[in-house]
Amino acid sequence: MRKAIVLLSGGLDSATTLAIARAEGFTSYALTFAYGQRHEAELAAAKKVATALGAKTHQVMQIDLAAFGGSALTDPAIAVPKSRRAEEMAQGIPVTYVPARNTIFLCFALAWAEVIGAFDIFIGVNALDYSGYPDCRPEYIAAFEQLANLATASGVEKKGKFVVHAPLIHLSKAEIIQRGLALGVDYAITLSCYDPDPKGNPCGACDACQLRSKGFRENAMADPGARLG
Amino acid sequence: MRKAIVLLSGGLDSATTLAIARAEGFTSYALTFAYGQRHEAELAAAKKVATALGAKTHQVMQIDLAAFGGSALTDPAIAVPKSRRAEEMAQGIPVTYVPARNTIFLCFALAWAEVIGAFDIFIGVNALDYSGYPDCRPEYIAAFEQLANLATASGVEKKGKFVVHAPLIHLSKAEIIQRGLALGVDYAITLSCYDPDPKGNPCGACDACQLRSKGFRENAMADPGARLG
Repeated sequence: MRKAIVLLSGGLDSATTLAIARAEGFTSYALTFAYGQRHEAELAAAKKVATALGAKTHQVMQIDLAAFGGSALTDPAIAVPKSRRAEEMAQGIPVTYVPARNTIFLCFALAWAEVIGAFDIFIGVNALDYSGYPDCRPEYIAAFEQLANLATASGVEKKGKFVVHAPLIHLSKAEIIQRGLALGVDYAITLSCYDPDPKGNPCGACDACQLRSKGFRENAMADPGARLG
Repeated sequence: MRKAIVLLSGGLDSATTLAIARAEGFTSYALTFAYGQRHEAELAAAKKVATALGAKTHQVMQIDLAAFGGSALTDPAIAVPKSRRAEEMAQGIPVTYVPARNTIFLCFALAWAEVIGAFDIFIGVNALDYSGYPDCRPEYIAAFEQLANLATASGVEKKGKFVVHAPLIHLSKAEIIQRGLALGVDYAITLSCYDPDPKGNPCGACDACQLRSKGFRENAMADPGARLG
C-alpha cells in the first residue's frame, strides 16, 4: 500500500479527507499542528478522528505561530467574527486567515513524506474558502506541488513525483458531508469551530460553525457535532 | 526603512547575508530555528551575530524536525561524514541534507513577513551547496517566490511582491568571506560546524568545516572561528 501524509485538524473537512485517502487505498500518516490556535480543542478531536479512520500513526507537531500573531485564530486580542451573513463571508480575506499557515503545514508534510518515502500529501482545502483564503485555491496547490518537486532530494533524484491531493477543493460543504457519510465518517467526533468554549463545545456563530451548520441543513439532517443543550 | 526577514543560523553564510541586508538598507528581523539539530551550539552564535550586526529583533522558533529524523543533522544514529575529499562532496545529496528544511524555514519567514508587512526575505544559500542540496538552487528560490505570492493575503491583494534574496547564491566561500569582511562581519563569533564538541568548538573535519577552512585559506588568512589549541 502506498503511504500518504494527511493533514488533519480535527474538523469536518480534514476528517473527510482522511476517509478519502483511506478509501483510495493509502496508508495514512496523519499530521496535526498545535500552532497556538485558540481552538486547541480541535487537537482532541483530531486524535479521535485519526483513530476512528484508521491512520497508521498520528503526529502532533508543536509550532508557535502565536509568536507571530496577526490572526484572530492565534491572537486573543483579535476577535473571531460572529454571525456574519453569507455576503459578508464572501468579501475579502477574513481576520481568521493565519499568514502562511497552510504553506507551513504542507512543508512539514513534505518533510515527513520525504523521510518515510511517501509522495502523496492530502489536504482538505475546499471551494467555500476560495474567496477568503489565498492558500485554498487550485493555483496555490499547483505552485506548492512544483516547489515540492524542486525542494527535495526525492524530487530531484526523480524517485517519484510529489502530488498534493485536495479532494474537496471543488465540493460544497453539503457535498463534503455526503461524501464523508458514504465513507463512514462519524462527524460527532469532529470539531470545526474557531472559538469553542472551554469545554470544547462549538460557538455556533463563527464562519466555520455557520458553514458547517448550513452543510448539514442542506442534507436535511442535524449536525451530530453541534453543541448540546 | 524597508523591513526584511533574515534567516540566521549562526554560520558564516547567514552572518554575511545579514550584513548584506543591513548594507542594502533593510531593517532586519532575524529568524533562527531550534529544530532539533545536533549542532545546537549554533543558536548561541546566531544570538551574538544578530546583536553584532544590528538586527532589530531576533526570534528563535522551536520546531521538532528530529521527530521526523532522516538526516545526520537531526538523527544521532546517522553519523556526520568527516574528512571527505572535494570530489566526494560534489557527488550526490549528502546525509546532512535535512528533508524540506529550507522550505520550512522560508515558510515561517513568509508568515512573519506577512504579519509585519515585509516583502523581503534573505537566505544565505550558496553555489557551493548546489550540487548537494536541492533547496539551495536558483530554480528552487524562484519557485518559492512564486508560491509566496500565491499563498498569502498580501500577495493576492497585490500590496507588494515577495522577493527572496539569496545574495550568496553565485559566490564561492572565499568570495563570501571577502564580502563579509568588507562589511565588518566578525567571523570569530560564527559557527559553521555540523558536529561541534559539547563546548561548541568546531570539529574541523565535517564538510561545513572543510569548506569554511578552504575559504579562509584562499583568502590567505586564518579562520578566526577555528578551534583553539
